[in-house]
Formats: sequence, C-alpha cells, structure tokens
Amino acid sequence: MRLRHKPGAEATIAAHPEYILTHPEEWRGRWHERFDSQQPLYVEVGSGKGRFIVEMAKAHPTINFIGVEMQMNAIISALEKQLDERLPNLQLLLVDGADLKDYFAAGEIDRIYLNFCDPWPKKRHEKRRLTYHTFLQTYEYLLRQKGEIHFKTDNQGLFEYSLASLSQYGMTLKQVWLDLHNSDFSGNIMTEYEEKFSAKGHPIYRLEATFN
Amino acid sequence: MRLRHKPGAEATIAAHPEYILTHPEEWRGRWHERFDSQQPLYVEVGSGKGRFIVEMAKAHPTINFIGVEMQMNAIISALEKQLDERLPNLQLLLVDGADLKDYFAAGEIDRIYLNFCDPWPKKRHEKRRLTYHTFLQTYEYLLRQKGEIHFKTDNQGLFEYSLASLSQYGMTLKQVWLDLHNSDFSGNIMTEYEEKFSAKGHPIYRLEATFN
Repeated sequence: MRLRHKPGAEATIAAHPEYILTHPEEWRGRWHERFDSQQPLYVEVGSGKGRFIVEMAKAHPTINFIGVEMQMNAIISALEKQLDERLPNLQLLLVDGADLKDYFAAGEIDRIYLNFCDPWPKKRHEKRRLTYHTFLQTYEYLLRQKGEIHFKTDNQGLFEYSLASLSQYGMTLKQVWLDLHNSDFSGNIMTEYEEKFSAKGHPIYRLEATFN
Repeated sequence: MRLRHKPGAEATIAAHPEYILTHPEEWRGRWHERFDSQQPLYVEVGSGKGRFIVEMAKAHPTINFIGVEMQMNAIISALEKQLDERLPNLQLLLVDGADLKDYFAAGEIDRIYLNFCDPWPKKRHEKRRLTYHTFLQTYEYLLRQKGEIHFKTDNQGLFEYSLASLSQYGMTLKQVWLDLHNSDFSGNIMTEYEEKFSAKGHPIYRLEATFN
C-alpha cells in the first residue's frame, strides 16, 4: 500500500501516547495494565488504516485489541478513527510486525488477525509472506495454548500457499471459507482493502487455525 | 450420478474376469500378483465411467492402477474403455468403496485418488462424504507410510469441509489448488464430470495430502 504522506502525522501521533505507542517494549508481558479491563487480547498484524481493528474493538467491548502497523501514513488514519471513538479496549502500535517478540511475551496473545497482507507472489520473496514458517514460529510463541490465527485474503496464490504452509508447520485448520461474502459467516468486519476488492468481484478467502 | 441401465452389462462384466472383479476379497494382500509388473499401486475410489483411471494407466505404465466403483451402469463404460486399450496395469472393481479394507491389506496402496465424489451437502449426511473421518481412517489403514491422497472436486462446500476434516484428522496438506485449470499444474487428466462442469466455468479445487 503506497500512501500519501499526511502532514502533521508525527505530531498527532506524538500527542496521543494514550492510544498509540512507537516504543512499546516497556509493556511487554503486562499489556493488561494498559487496558481498563482484564480480558482476552486480540492483535491484528498489519492494521493499515484501521477500519477492521477499530470496528472490532467497538463491536466487542469484552475483548482488548491491539493494532500493529509499520506505516505511519496508514496508522495515522487508524488513530484518527480512535480519536473519534476513544475506545478503552484499543491500542495502536507503530512498529514493525517482524519484531513482535520484542513487544509481547510468550503466550500473552489470545488471537492474531492477519488481514490482506502483502502476497509477495515471487518465490524468492516467500520469506516475507506473513504465513511463512518463521512468522508462524513467532505467532506460536506469542499465542496462548489453543490461541487462534484468523486470516483473510483475496489473493488466491497466497491462500493456497498459506493452507499448505500452516498445515506443514503442524497447525490445525478449524474452518475454511473460499467465498466469505457468499457464506453464512456472520459478523464479518471488512477492511478498507476488502471492501474495495470484493466490490470488483474477487472472492474473499478466510481461515481459522490453531497450533497443536 | 443416475445412469441408464445398459442391457448386457452383467454379461460383459462376467465375460471379462481378467479386467473386472466383483468379489475381489481373494486378492487382498497380494494385488501385485494380478499385474504383470511389481510397481506402485494407485487406487481411485469412485471411478465412474473410468476416463480418469484408464487415461492415467495409459499415461503411467510404471504404476499399477485399480478403479473402484459401485455402480454397474458406470463401471461398464470403464470396462469398455479397457477392452479397447487392454492395459496390463489396470484392474477394475465393481464393489462398494465403503468396504475397502475387505479388498486391500494394510499399507498395500501407495496413493488414493478421490475425484468429484458426492458432496452430500446436508449436515445430516456428513458421514457419507468420502473425506469424513471414518473414511480417512480407512485410507490411513490402506496407505503405506507417506502414501498420498489426491482429491479433486468442483464443489466449494465439500472442498472447504475437506480441508478442515483432513487437517483435524492430523493429515498434512502438501499442496492446494483453488483453480486447477488456471494453474501451472501439468498432467491433469480430466474426469467426464470435470470436463462438463469446468466447461460451465466452475473452478476445480484440488489437494494433495499425507498422513503423518
């Protein structure tokens, strides 16, 4: 996603440390202290402009949510949404998702969302896909026992790859959707990207999986 | 598949015990004796009119093939194809695929093909789907270590179900195709059904999986 630079983004981010962190290491292992309520923690890796994580946090007040995004020009939109909502169960992190172990302790997360991550279609870029085994290793470390990965994409090649990659890592598929928007799945919250590409008629793929 | 009764089918089948068996119990555990060459054994469960298994046997002379089908009015067409070809590496069984353990010994099969089996879409018919866990148990018994299941369908619901069912059984997905005919998969041999439904624009789903 290439985004226009938003003037004043740095200043807005710096002005709201109650909602967005750029050096979250100090909260590693004690994220529950950042939230009003002790409740499960769901993390979205790659939150983009934040529509999914903000709407999820609004719809599910009994869950704590953290949206992680490395692009300032994307997460500034998430922060603006949060400044409208001021949800007590939502935090944003402007950090690289590759370093998640620096920001979360083992077993600290109950569920991880991966939504429309970059498909990196070239074989030589396989290592960058968020369902490559090195990333799965990180998620396994971060998730509590039986914690879940929920993954959505409109990219057929990435979904095919991910089904095999998760399976070969030893994960169990709980459920798979090959056309989410024409299914009986309820409560789907669309990302900005999802709305755009499903409007073009792309099927949306989804899976839920656990580590064994 | 509802098929017209072919007059004389019984007589044709009875006249060719060298190619088709209706009581194959006696060969259990010694199928290699039925073939000219000792080579891997691939079995298709639900061969229908036999185009897939006959063309596979023709294309792969270093593999022995067995096509299993319970409907006489379907397998008679497979037999007619075999009578044209007289392939030494192909046998046909007119038996119920649910009783495979009666006809094959543990570990006797190297690969099982499931092609366009009945999707049984109603939840109360789940047990009849050929990827239900009781069938997977049978395949696990029949296959040698690291033997593979190769599964094709045009039915989205059945494919979604099967991905989760195989995974939950503990199988590993080696590879998944969500649109086989628009992929770089080479050597695909279409079944009669596959040709008809892919011509209507249905994507063909495929997977390869092993037991662990």
